[in-house]
This record gives sequence, structure tokens and C-alpha cells, in this order.
Amino acid sequence: MSEESTVPTLKRFLLGRPIPSHLAHHQRLSRVTGLAVLSSDALSSVAYATDFIVATLVVAGAASVWYSIPISLVIAALLAVVAFSYRQTIHAYPTGGGAYIVAKENISATAGLIAAASLLVDYTLTVSVSISAGVLAITSAAPRLDAYRVEMCLAFLVVLMIGNLRGIRESGRIFAVPTYIFVVSIAGLIGVGIFRYLMHSVVPMDAPLPPVAGTRPLTTFLLLTAFANGCTAMTGVEAVSNGVPAFRPPEAKNAAATLVTMAVLAITMFLGITFLEHIYHVMPSTSESGVSQLGRAIFGGHTFLYYLVQAATTAILVLAANTAYADFPRLASIVSRDRYLPRQFMNQGDRLAFSNGIIVLSLFAAVLIIAFRGDTQALLPLYMIGVFVSFTLSQAGMVVHWRHTKEAGWKTSAFINGFGALVTAVVLAIVTVTKTFEGAWIVLLLIPAIVTMFKATRRHYDHVASQLTLRGYTPQRRVHNTVLMPIGGIQRAVVEALRYAETLSDDVRAVYVDVDAASTEQLRRDWEIWGGQVKLVVLASPYRSMMEPLLEYIEQVESERPEDYVTVILPEFVPAAWWQHLLHNQRALLIKGALLFRPNTVVTSVPFHLAK
Amino acid sequence: MSEESTVPTLKRFLLGRPIPSHLAHHQRLSRVTGLAVLSSDALSSVAYATDFIVATLVVAGAASVWYSIPISLVIAALLAVVAFSYRQTIHAYPTGGGAYIVAKENISATAGLIAAASLLVDYTLTVSVSISAGVLAITSAAPRLDAYRVEMCLAFLVVLMIGNLRGIRESGRIFAVPTYIFVVSIAGLIGVGIFRYLMHSVVPMDAPLPPVAGTRPLTTFLLLTAFANGCTAMTGVEAVSNGVPAFRPPEAKNAAATLVTMAVLAITMFLGITFLEHIYHVMPSTSESGVSQLGRAIFGGHTFLYYLVQAATTAILVLAANTAYADFPRLASIVSRDRYLPRQFMNQGDRLAFSNGIIVLSLFAAVLIIAFRGDTQALLPLYMIGVFVSFTLSQAGMVVHWRHTKEAGWKTSAFINGFGALVTAVVLAIVTVTKTFEGAWIVLLLIPAIVTMFKATRRHYDHVASQLTLRGYTPQRRVHNTVLMPIGGIQRAVVEALRYAETLSDDVRAVYVDVDAASTEQLRRDWEIWGGQVKLVVLASPYRSMMEPLLEYIEQVESERPEDYVTVILPEFVPAAWWQHLLHNQRALLIKGALLFRPNTVVTSVPFHLAK
Repeated sequence: MSEESTVPTLKRFLLGRPIPSHLAHHQRLSRVTGLAVLSSDALSSVAYATDFIVATLVVAGAASVWYSIPISLVIAALLAVVAFSYRQTIHAYPTGGGAYIVAKENISATAGLIAAASLLVDYTLTVSVSISAGVLAITSAAPRLDAYRVEMCLAFLVVLMIGNLRGIRESGRIFAVPTYIFVVSIAGLIGVGIFRYLMHSVVPMDAPLPPVAGTRPLTTFLLLTAFANGCTAMTGVEAVSNGVPAFRPPEAKNAAATLVTMAVLAITMFLGITFLEHIYHVMPSTSESGVSQLGRAIFGGHTFLYYLVQAATTAILVLAANTAYADFPRLASIVSRDRYLPRQFMNQGDRLAFSNGIIVLSLFAAVLIIAFRGDTQALLPLYMIGVFVSFTLSQAGMVVHWRHTKEAGWKTSAFINGFGALVTAVVLAIVTVTKTFEGAWIVLLLIPAIVTMFKATRRHYDHVASQLTLRGYTPQRRVHNTVLMPIGGIQRAVVEALRYAETLSDDVRAVYVDVDAASTEQLRRDWEIWGGQVKLVVLASPYRSMMEPLLEYIEQVESERPEDYVTVILPEFVPAAWWQHLLHNQRALLIKGALLFRPNTVVTSVPFHLAK
Repeated sequence: MSEESTVPTLKRFLLGRPIPSHLAHHQRLSRVTGLAVLSSDALSSVAYATDFIVATLVVAGAASVWYSIPISLVIAALLAVVAFSYRQTIHAYPTGGGAYIVAKENISATAGLIAAASLLVDYTLTVSVSISAGVLAITSAAPRLDAYRVEMCLAFLVVLMIGNLRGIRESGRIFAVPTYIFVVSIAGLIGVGIFRYLMHSVVPMDAPLPPVAGTRPLTTFLLLTAFANGCTAMTGVEAVSNGVPAFRPPEAKNAAATLVTMAVLAITMFLGITFLEHIYHVMPSTSESGVSQLGRAIFGGHTFLYYLVQAATTAILVLAANTAYADFPRLASIVSRDRYLPRQFMNQGDRLAFSNGIIVLSLFAAVLIIAFRGDTQALLPLYMIGVFVSFTLSQAGMVVHWRHTKEAGWKTSAFINGFGALVTAVVLAIVTVTKTFEGAWIVLLLIPAIVTMFKATRRHYDHVASQLTLRGYTPQRRVHNTVLMPIGGIQRAVVEALRYAETLSDDVRAVYVDVDAASTEQLRRDWEIWGGQVKLVVLASPYRSMMEPLLEYIEQVESERPEDYVTVILPEFVPAAWWQHLLHNQRALLIKGALLFRPNTVVTSVPFHLAK
């Protein structure tokens, strides 16, 4: 099998067959698959949000843990406000109202770019945090596997990457089942747990307190930190409003219904788990999650139902990363269409997925997982800045939007979004204050760096466009083309390239650097036989350098006819096996590199195919 | 300053000015600089060889450590035998008698390649082990620096690499001073130490025994392991005989005298240090070397003389790596001349140093240092297999040599080399038996792998030569050249490339893939103005793919005239800054990749230079 056909075959095997344009809209999401694909982030965060609140409060002693109840109620209320606020965005932007578009259109281009940078960072962290938390659900049930935490995270990442490169519909199908199993199994956990509570048959866990317990007083700062950590429950709410165009028509209506369902489910599960963790005296640790402890307390340690809860938690968390796989490439593509990102992000792959975005997302997420050793709690401080920056900008942008359109009921709408903006801005401030020194500074530096990169890219493309414009341009008519061919001796590949060179111009010169008199003499004799019409130029080289005399000669030829072309022909071996590349063409590469920055010089490689 | 001139300026700054051919022999080594450049490996190994013997013996309890004395005497005798044996090689091979050449000429090509592979592995390990041991001499005196061990190793590596890229004579000058300071300071240490012993004023160290002390019985296997570890003292003996042509004339005589001086110095220092470590009850550990403990016991802990010994030890050890920097590129160059290695290793750089070999050696040594965290004791088991394979093959080859030449006194000469071969073969067997499971298996796999690579390279070059021969070759006279230019739209870079294409042929066709009817219509209108004589071909694309219709069309054009050329012209942006490459030319790259394996197809990039 030739090399030509191996690569496409492999690609097809991994990614499936290409799809013609006119079939594209069959890939759209129903409400049922849409909830699975776009809501898993928001739903799955209930699996860890309570743990973060409890783990923060216990530092002030076991007695402080009950504050998790009022804190969760506040967060649930905020989640409802934000969801309601985003529901308005769906209707106002039925073609997809991500924070980037809303902030760009209503506030300013820079605000849009800040939102876009925040979201790209956020999506990457969603992948890392969700996969790490999913692996924690496995290692909670099977502690021996903890040694392979990072490897397991990376394995899930690869599965997600390939799944997404294969395309959207497959994603929906794969992801629907575990999402619904998760919802049902958590509902069962909460139902049985509350039933036991009402029957007074609760047996509290005797999980050991962590060593830090009771080491600090219960300050307002600590309560705010617990609140900030709990706000992870709100992440992922925006995914549906970004993904409106992925729904089946009527897109906006389907998306809005999906958003409401998602918010109701997320709030119910979050409050239920928080309540149960409190009454069952659950104490989450880095080696066992709170949901796992609840499962053991309610269903018993080695029961089928316990393992079902753990498996469903893993599945939804790993698949929550899929929300980011749906949104990161889509956002990158929109930003790239505005020329703030390289145009490669605009290419749709064979299966309508945005392959480059998917690959870049996977790489960055892998770096985070490796750098933080797959530890959810260590990644957490980086997580929420990006989310709440984009929430705030998006809601603020909507306020401006309503003031512009002034359509019926715009004041109510503006009030709802304004309240949403205020709430998320306050959360952002709290997160920034409590998390900066724990690692969030990385994100605070990263966002402006990415915005700078966006602007540099756009500036570059604008410069290029101005250099490429045909307005007022008259091309020079250049007729003469001097063809030069550096040679190191004479053999079949050289002779073939000479014959090719002769088709290009009637001014062809072979150039040879003389480092050894005997070899030069031999070459002159061979030239009589094989040189054909081509003139032989021999250059002296006092320093034995091959390159310098050659470059000087090319420069001299160019200066003789500055307005005309010089074409440099290089015979190039095309080996039969990849490793043989290392054995050839080094000099050709050097010459190409040296000539790259010379105007009017064209370098042409004439391939010589080696049989083996 | 343009990019053209920046690169050579930087290169010159780092590597010095180029040297014309006729000045080359001024770079040769005198006996004094030759001893420094080629003997530092052999001399410096006395700084750690004793430690390895003692650290092995102490496992059987402190009482077993006295065996270091008889073991060292055996090793010293072997060293004398091997040195004497190599002295004969110098005279028989005045143009450089490395194990590769001797084994290849006298035994077989494969034997030569095994010797060459062993030596290349050995040189790499010499660099890693010597640098690690040199850094240990620093951290022995300043334990706080131990945390930066790997970084310090890599820093020394970079200094050595740049020093060697600059050229041989500079190396001699840099390395002479520390080598002689080392010899004098170790001689002082031994002299004062023995004087104190004779005066009965020895105060033994009370270094703690390592935790493994006394955990195993004193078996023959343990004694053999201690002996095998001590044989590191013999490494580096071959360096002088490999480096004969680097000496000033008379090369052989100067080299032989240098070899004898080196052997006498190495044996004296090795026995002296072993004796002193015994009477001063020194117990080397991974955090403090034996020489450092001796220095503290004899000169006192914070004295000038103690720090001088440590500094000289570091200097000679780091510079011992330089032996490998002299030999690795030279051997790679000889092997490459026989076409067993890529021809890049044959190029001499601007300053007569073999740049590619130096760079490859540095990279592999860096990998070893990082993989083994700069720990000398962990690297040790890998070290000696390569050394003794090449010793044995080289001496055995010399026996065959004498039997062939039958010159005066050949029987004595054959006996000496035969005895050397026997001795080194026995050591090789002991090293293999005792070290295989401690890591030497890596080297036992690596050597045959490298030999296989050598042979594959040679086979490939032979195949290429047979495909390039002009014997019986009649070039086809091909006249027609169809020039195709894929375009995605029309702008200035496209128009310039079109004008270039027109100089190449009178059959030029622009090829456009139709993915959107409106854009295609616009292009047809623009073509009226800018197309010139060039025919416009529009291809349909039902799957929205840009590449497939294009490749199919090129295939079709080729099949129309299978014996003629097709030239594909691609406009290519040459950006002003490196990062801008990421923003351009992706499609050109894809097209080039797809066309690489097609015969008779030439791809030409016409550069368009972006101003910013």
C-alpha cells in the first residue's frame, strides 16, 4: 500500500466518512440530546460543589460546617437568577448569543475579546476539572487506582478528543444515556436519603476530620471563600445559550426549554446533596468524594446501587468536559471569522466538527492535568474567574441591548439582565479577592495575554489585507527568468533536474563550488557528456564553505537584473520510508532557508523518487 | 538589521571566526595539551572509582571494606596491561586506531560496527557520569546546592557544547590548567595524607555507615561486583589511541609518550586514594564523595586546600566529558565516511569541529542526566559494558593484525595484545553478569539496535547509489510542462505568482474550487481584469472539500501526458516575524504534503514578502 492511501484510510477509520454539505442540518440536536450535550457541565458540578464548601468551612472546625446550608441556598438563588438572565439572551440572539458576541455588539470589541479569552480559558479548565473529578469518583470506589490518576485522566481526554473529532451527532448519542442515568441515580440517592431521614433511620458517617480542621477562626473571609468555592455549581449555565444554532428548529424555543429544565435539575440536585451531606456528617477528602460517602451511607459500601452512583458520576463528569468540546471550537471559529485567531480555526473538518479547536483544547487540558497531577482541589482556584468575567460581560451587554432595541417589555428585560450582571459581578469580586493568591493570578495574567494575542493577530491580518489589495496595483511585466541549479556532482537525480530546468528558461546555469581540484576536473569532463545546453559555473571557495560562494553568486545574478526573477532548482530525494528523510536533502534545506528572505527568488525542488 | 545577517553574526559570536583550509594543521595538540584534552577521562575516574568499590563492599559490613586494597591492586595491574596494549595500537595505526577501525580491518565489518556502537554509547555515558560526579564534588562542599543538581549538570553541558563547537585549540587551552591543578592537588592530598600516616597523626573520619551496611553476606558475587564497579578506573584509556591524528608530528611518538604518562599518573592516584580512604575510614555516600571526606580529614573542613581539591575535582570531571567531545564526533565522522551514519556527521563546521556530532552527543547526554536525576551511582551500571566491548574487540583485532603483518617481533606484540584481549574479555564477562539486572540491559539492547541502524543506513545509501548511477542511463527528453496554480481568490500575491507562472510555460492554468456560487461568480468577473493569458479552471466540490477536487484534477492532467512534467505553483507568504508563520500558508503546506509522493510533479512556492 502506498503512503498516499494509508493516511486517508487511517483518518477515515478514526473519524468516519465525510458528509456532503446538503446533509449538514441532520446533525442538529433535539431537546433530549441537547440537554445531554450542553447541560452535563452544569448538572455534573453538583457532584463536587458541596464538597468544596464543606472542605473550606471545616478549617474553622466541625461546628462551622452547617453554614453550608445557608451558603447553598444563596448559590441556588443566584443560579436561578443567572439562568433566567441567560434565557433572555437565547431569545434575543437565536443565532447563538455567546458572551463574545453579546459583549462585542453591545459594549465594545475589547469587551468581547475579554469575554472570549475568559471563555476559552474556562472551557479548558472545565475539561481538566471535570475529568479530574470524574476520575476521583472512580478512585473513591477503588482507592488502589489512585496511583494511576493522571494516566486515567489522559485516557478519558483521548477518548473525548476522538469522539468529538468524529462529529456532533455521535456525541449526542454517546452522551445522552449516562446523563440521564446520573440524574436518575442522584434523584434516587436523594429520595432514599430523605426517606431515611424522615424515618429517623440515619446512621451518620464517622469520616475522620482533615488535619487542618479547627486551625483557623470562622471569619467573614472564610465564609466568602466557601461561597466562592460553592459557586462552581453555577458553571456551565451559559453553554445552552452559546449553542442555540446547534438545536433543531425552532432553535430558540428548544434551547430555552432545555435551559429551564437544566436549571431546575441542577438546583434540586445541588440542594439535595448539600442537605444530605449535612445530616449524614459527610467529610469529603482528596481521596473520597462526598457523593461517594453519601452513597456508602445510604446504599451501603459494596452494593450495586453505590457502584451505579459512582459510575454515573464518573460518566457525567467526564462527559461534562464534552460541553467544552462543543463550545470551545465553536467560539474559536467565531473569533477566527473576525480574524482575531488564525484562520485554521475556521476550517470545518470532514465531519463538520472543528478539528483544530478540538485538538488545541485537548492539548491545553492535558497540560493542566499533568501540571496539577489531576487534583481537582488544586485546579479549582483557577476555574471560576473566567466563568464569571464572561457572565458579567454577557449580562451587562444584554442591558445595553435592551436599551437600544426598546422593544415591548424592554425595561423588565433590562432589569432582569442588570440584576444578573450585578450578582455575577459581586461573585466575580469575591472570587478574585479570595482566590488570587491560591493560583487565580495565573488566569488574571492569562486573559490579558490572550486578548493581546487576539489583537496582534487581527492587526497582522489587516496589514496583510492592505498589502494584498489590487486597488491601484499594476503588475510589472517580468519576462526574463534566470534559472540556477547548485550541484555537488553529477548523477541521475541531477541530470533529471537539469532536463526539467531546461523547460523553464533558455538561461539555465549549473553552479558548482570548487573545494577540491581533482573533483572539479572530473566534473568538467562529465559535463561534456551530461551537461546538455546548460552552462557550468564553477565558484572558488577559499574557506571550504559550500554555502557562502553560492549565496554570493546568486546575489550577483540578482543584482544584474533586479527587476527579473531568479529561479533556484534543487534536486530533492523523496525516500520510500520516513526515516530516510534524515539521510538526505540537508543541503537543499540549508539553501532554502538562506534564500527564504530574498525577494524575486523562487526555489523549486524537483523530486527524485527513490524506489527503496 | 535584516534576518539574513542576524543569524551568521550570532553564529560567529558563539563560535568564533571561520578558518581557511591551509591553516588547519596549526590546530594540532602538543603532548602537554594532548594530555589535558585526551586524558582527563582516564585521570578523573580516580575521583570516583574507589568510592564505588567501598560503597559495594560495605553492604557486607564495615569489616569487608579492607578488600578494596587487593581489588584496587588487581585493577591497577589490569590498567597497566591495557595501556601497554593500546601503546602498540598507536604505533601500528598512526592515522588513528580506534576500536572501530582496528576491529573492522582485522576481524569483520560487523565487529567494527559493534565496537563503534559501544564507543558511541560509552562516550555519551562518559559525559553524563563525569558531569554528575563533578557536580557531586560541588554539592559535597556545599550541600545546600544539592537541590539544583540536575540544573547544574545541564549548565556544565551547555558550556562544554559551546566550547567544543568553537574548536579544538581553544579546548586544549581551557582544559590544560585545571587538569594539571587536579594532578598537583591530588598528589598533595596523597603526600600529606601518607606523611600523617607515617607520623601516626591520622584522625579517622566518623562518617556514618549507610543503612544497607551489613545486610548481605560477603559472597564471591559481591566481591566481583565491587571489582566490576572499580573498573571504572580503566575507562578513558583508549582516548589517546583514537586521537593520534590530532597530535603534532611525529604524531605516533607524541601520542605514545602521552599514553604512558597518563597511565602512570592514573595508577598512582588511584592506588593512593584507595589506600588513604582505607586508613582514614572514609565512607562515601550519595551526598559526599570519598575525596571530599579525605580532603576534610587531611586538610580540615573549611580550609583553602580543601576547597582547592574540590574545585579541581569538579573542573577535571566536567572537563573529562571533553574527552568524549573530542572522540564522539571524530568516530561519528569516520563511521559516516563509510556511509553507516547520515552524511551530516561528515561535515566539518566552520571551525573544524564536527558540529553535528557535538550537538547529538550533548542531546543524548542531557537525556541521560535528566532521566537519572544526575545521580552518578545510578548511571554507573550502564557505563562499562560499552567500554569493555570496545577494549576486547580492539585488542583482539590487534592480534589478527600482527599475525597478518608478521613484522619483526610480531609474536611478542601479538602476545601482549592477546593478553590484553583476554583480560578485558574477562572484565566484560564480570561486568555483564553483575550489572545486567541493575540497568546494563539497556546498553545490551542498545548496542545491537545501533548496529542495525548502521547497517540500514549503509544499505539505503547503497540502494540510492545504484539508483543514481549514470551507467546505461538515457535521459528522456521532456519538453512539455503544464503549469497549474490552485487559487482561493484573487489578490496581489496571486497576481504576482500568475505573472511568474507565465514565464515558465505557455500552458498555465489557474484552478479554483467552487464551494459557494456567489464567490465563484465574483472571481470570474475579476478574472477578466487580472487573469492575463492564464486559463481559469473551476472545479465542483459536492463535499465542500478544497483538497479532493484539486488532487483529482492534477491526477487527470498528469494522466493526459504521463511522460511530461506538471508544475504546481503556490503563492507563499513570507512574513516579517516568525510567529506570523502560524497565520499563513497552511493550505500550501497541505497541498505540498499531498503531492510529495507523485512522480513528475514539481511544486514551486513563489514568495510574497509581507512588510509587517
